[in-house]
Amino acid sequence: MLTLSELADFITSKGIPCTVEGDGGVSISAVATLEDAGEGQISFLSNPKYEPQLATTRASAVFVRPELKPPRPMTLVRTADPYAAVTAAIVRLHGYREHPHWGVSPQAFIHPTAKIGANANIAPGVHIARDVVIGDDAVIYPGVYIARRCKIGNAVTLFPNVVIYEDSVLGDRVVVHAGTVIGEDGLGYAPVNDKWVKIPQIGNVVIGDDVEIGANCTIDRATLGSTVIGSGTKFSNLIAIGHGTKIGDDCLFVAQVGIAGSVNVGRHVTMAGQAGVVGHITIGDNVTVGAKAGVTNSIEEGMTVLGAPAVPIQECKRQVAAMQKLPQMKKEILRLRNDVQRLLERDGQAEKRES
Amino acid sequence: MLTLSELADFITSKGIPCTVEGDGGVSISAVATLEDAGEGQISFLSNPKYEPQLATTRASAVFVRPELKPPRPMTLVRTADPYAAVTAAIVRLHGYREHPHWGVSPQAFIHPTAKIGANANIAPGVHIARDVVIGDDAVIYPGVYIARRCKIGNAVTLFPNVVIYEDSVLGDRVVVHAGTVIGEDGLGYAPVNDKWVKIPQIGNVVIGDDVEIGANCTIDRATLGSTVIGSGTKFSNLIAIGHGTKIGDDCLFVAQVGIAGSVNVGRHVTMAGQAGVVGHITIGDNVTVGAKAGVTNSIEEGMTVLGAPAVPIQECKRQVAAMQKLPQMKKEILRLRNDVQRLLERDGQAEKRES
Amino acid sequence: MLTLSELADFITSKGIPCTVEGDGGVSISAVATLEDAGEGQISFLSNPKYEPQLATTRASAVFVRPELKPPRPMTLVRTADPYAAVTAAIVRLHGYREHPHWGVSPQAFIHPTAKIGANANIAPGVHIARDVVIGDDAVIYPGVYIARRCKIGNAVTLFPNVVIYEDSVLGDRVVVHAGTVIGEDGLGYAPVNDKWVKIPQIGNVVIGDDVEIGANCTIDRATLGSTVIGSGTKFSNLIAIGHGTKIGDDCLFVAQVGIAGSVNVGRHVTMAGQAGVVGHITIGDNVTVGAKAGVTNSIEEGMTVLGAPAVPIQECKRQVAAMQKLPQMKKEILRLRNDVQRLLERDGQAEKRES
Repeated sequence: MLTLSELADFITSKGIPCTVEGDGGVSISAVATLEDAGEGQISFLSNPKYEPQLATTRASAVFVRPELKPPRPMTLVRTADPYAAVTAAIVRLHGYREHPHWGVSPQAFIHPTAKIGANANIAPGVHIARDVVIGDDAVIYPGVYIARRCKIGNAVTLFPNVVIYEDSVLGDRVVVHAGTVIGEDGLGYAPVNDKWVKIPQIGNVVIGDDVEIGANCTIDRATLGSTVIGSGTKFSNLIAIGHGTKIGDDCLFVAQVGIAGSVNVGRHVTMAGQAGVVGHITIGDNVTVGAKAGVTNSIEEGMTVLGAPAVPIQECKRQVAAMQKLPQMKKEILRLRNDVQRLLERDGQAEKRES
Repeated sequence: MLTLSELADFITSKGIPCTVEGDGGVSISAVATLEDAGEGQISFLSNPKYEPQLATTRASAVFVRPELKPPRPMTLVRTADPYAAVTAAIVRLHGYREHPHWGVSPQAFIHPTAKIGANANIAPGVHIARDVVIGDDAVIYPGVYIARRCKIGNAVTLFPNVVIYEDSVLGDRVVVHAGTVIGEDGLGYAPVNDKWVKIPQIGNVVIGDDVEIGANCTIDRATLGSTVIGSGTKFSNLIAIGHGTKIGDDCLFVAQVGIAGSVNVGRHVTMAGQAGVVGHITIGDNVTVGAKAGVTNSIEEGMTVLGAPAVPIQECKRQVAAMQKLPQMKKEILRLRNDVQRLLERDGQAEKRES
Repeated sequence: MLTLSELADFITSKGIPCTVEGDGGVSISAVATLEDAGEGQISFLSNPKYEPQLATTRASAVFVRPELKPPRPMTLVRTADPYAAVTAAIVRLHGYREHPHWGVSPQAFIHPTAKIGANANIAPGVHIARDVVIGDDAVIYPGVYIARRCKIGNAVTLFPNVVIYEDSVLGDRVVVHAGTVIGEDGLGYAPVNDKWVKIPQIGNVVIGDDVEIGANCTIDRATLGSTVIGSGTKFSNLIAIGHGTKIGDDCLFVAQVGIAGSVNVGRHVTMAGQAGVVGHITIGDNVTVGAKAGVTNSIEEGMTVLGAPAVPIQECKRQVAAMQKLPQMKKEILRLRNDVQRLLERDGQAEKRES
């Protein structure tokens, strides 16, 4: 617990300037939503949709933008970026998850050829196969399976039932949530007489530093070479990445995104929920792909696309607006046809009269 | 095994009136589809698509609606709701799944501070962490992980490899199918200089009574507060629920539905397969969202929507019909332009002549 | 390692005629992509998109089509099907995955009534329930759960954390990747007074020979009868198959495909990524369903469909082309209306003058 002024000073010291407006001496022990917050709790207003909740919140203080006009006298902390400020407040007041402490459980199955770094925390029921190398400070939950020759960096966290196939490489501070599978075979078959002949998938998966992957995702190993997830990239849940695809650094993928094989995705690309990308194309840096978009062609750097097939967002919005007018357009075309038909008939008569 | 009359009486006693038409003395031992059923088996006709199979089924009896005209003499059980009747028949003749009996396995890893209710059935290889509380009559299959401070109600069934992150709350009679993950971190990052800074996800997941969740789903914990799944709600498989979203009671979600974060879904809402909903909106009670719909705006109570972006179903059907006419519309506009051009030219000549 | 000529002879002997053009004596030890290949490695050119990489590859030899003109002098192996040739080369030089050898681990939980065939390889932490029957040469990774009365064929591979519910049947040489769930209950509920009453799901899942299923898929058991996956069919990841659906032989489903319940899919059907199919319809043999397509009606044999709702691919392409012209069409209709209005007005005046 600390006072509001102490909290504001702490956040300011983290590079996010904050100014208290009201009683800086109030004690703050937790962060909560505007709806749920009570005494001793601080909340925040970032999305303007929630501004009406300012009138009724019982929070002791609220992070808001400099220009906000409160609906009643309130204790505020003004800052240019309330979202960054509340993030810092959550880290300060609540911190990150504490993991159980297992040490290296004697009930984990660790092959004698595997090398495990210092300060490892490996649960019972973990399986680590032959020739695996794991860095320092690993946290590995029950039910995780790490296959032969994987190389895992320092300070990696693998939640329960994560499965990592052979030869995968994970960087430092990678976090993989429960049930995600890394390095399974992709859909690699040669068609021979209407049958599918399996192609051995001899490539691997390489994941950079500071990557976080959600729950129940699947990342195919490459047929040849590597499937790559760049450093700093963050995935939500139930995402499928095809074999040989390379994702750049600092991307953000929302749940249920699917990327086919042999795609090159640039850095800092955002994919919204349920977006899909066909194989063998290139997505430039800083591209944003809208929810449910179906990307069928390469996309230039910096574009925002939407729709299936995906097109630049302004074009998609024009298409959608026009589509919603379609039934009226159909009627208007009918009316035009009638009018024109009448004009043509009268014109024919006029022509006849003239001749 | 019992006679057809006994079965009909049993179902009637459950509030679903049934009348036997034909030999009530025939022995019935099982329920099967019209296609598969043989002697001693009862089937049902609910979806009219399958009516042609009445002519060929070898079932000893069939549940049908009062008005149905059979294609040949058959033993029928007439009832206003054949689907409810066959459900009662399956329960009576086959019952629900029997689970293995493990008692509390000494090979389960149960933290000494965890409290487990009476009559627990906990498999080898289950992990239950510090300060977990579980009610009576739990059935917990192998590979399940339950993290710190979770509160699990009575008569809960967790199938193999379910993972429940810390602080989750599950009501009574909740069933979670294999591989589902509850309470993983959502995609909560603050953008700082093109990097994604993780926001500790300090909220939790709260699941009501009588909820059933399919296999390999993912339900994010809230950043602050709770992600909520209302009592009586049923999920199919591979469903993703975003952080802080609240789903009402008695909803039905088909496979691969994705709901972004901070969505409020009312009660008795149906989401068909692969539907998606963007964040921070409200879906009213009794709404139906069609398959593959992409919901981008709040929806009023009782509506049925379809399409991406989703619109009321009648509007969507008009749009689809118009879209299928689009190529013809394009041609018709060209023809109109030609006709109008000709008229304009003649009109210009007429004007010239007149002047 | 072997010489290029030896490799070409081997592939030719497998029914894929190959001709070396250049130095047949060069040693080949591995297969790699055009981009990654170095000395002693062979690559291939199948997709014409990658032809520019021929100029820069450091591969010692490349499989190419008979008609290809290389951009510079290179050692080539000409063949009508470079993709089949490289598949054979990978099998010859790298082989298929080697599994760890556990024998039948004493730390696996195998019910005494289960029958396990010869030469089984069953990891610690595997659970095999009462009355399960497993053929010869099984490979079962840690965390797999096989429920009561399942019948598993010969030479089956189950990767970590696969869950198979009771009464499932798997053919010979079936491969199931990590985290996939087979035989969970489908979404079977009878609506009674706005509540969902569970229907016991008493059917099962039957999987043919030589089926390969990706990671984190879900295949519902049938309510009555069987959900069926035909022999030779291959699935990618995160695929959902509804209860009672029957998939034919030699199909190929890309990631995140969802098929609702009671669908009949023919043989050799291809479903591209994120495609969806509604319940109770029939898909003919050799149908191709495009990425993200939403199939709402039965499809005749041999068709290729695309779009949501899905239509024949040529029609879909015409619709998409027309849709991209929609904003212009809207403008053109407005122009036509103006012109017609002017004509109508002049016509009215003319009529007046005439009368």
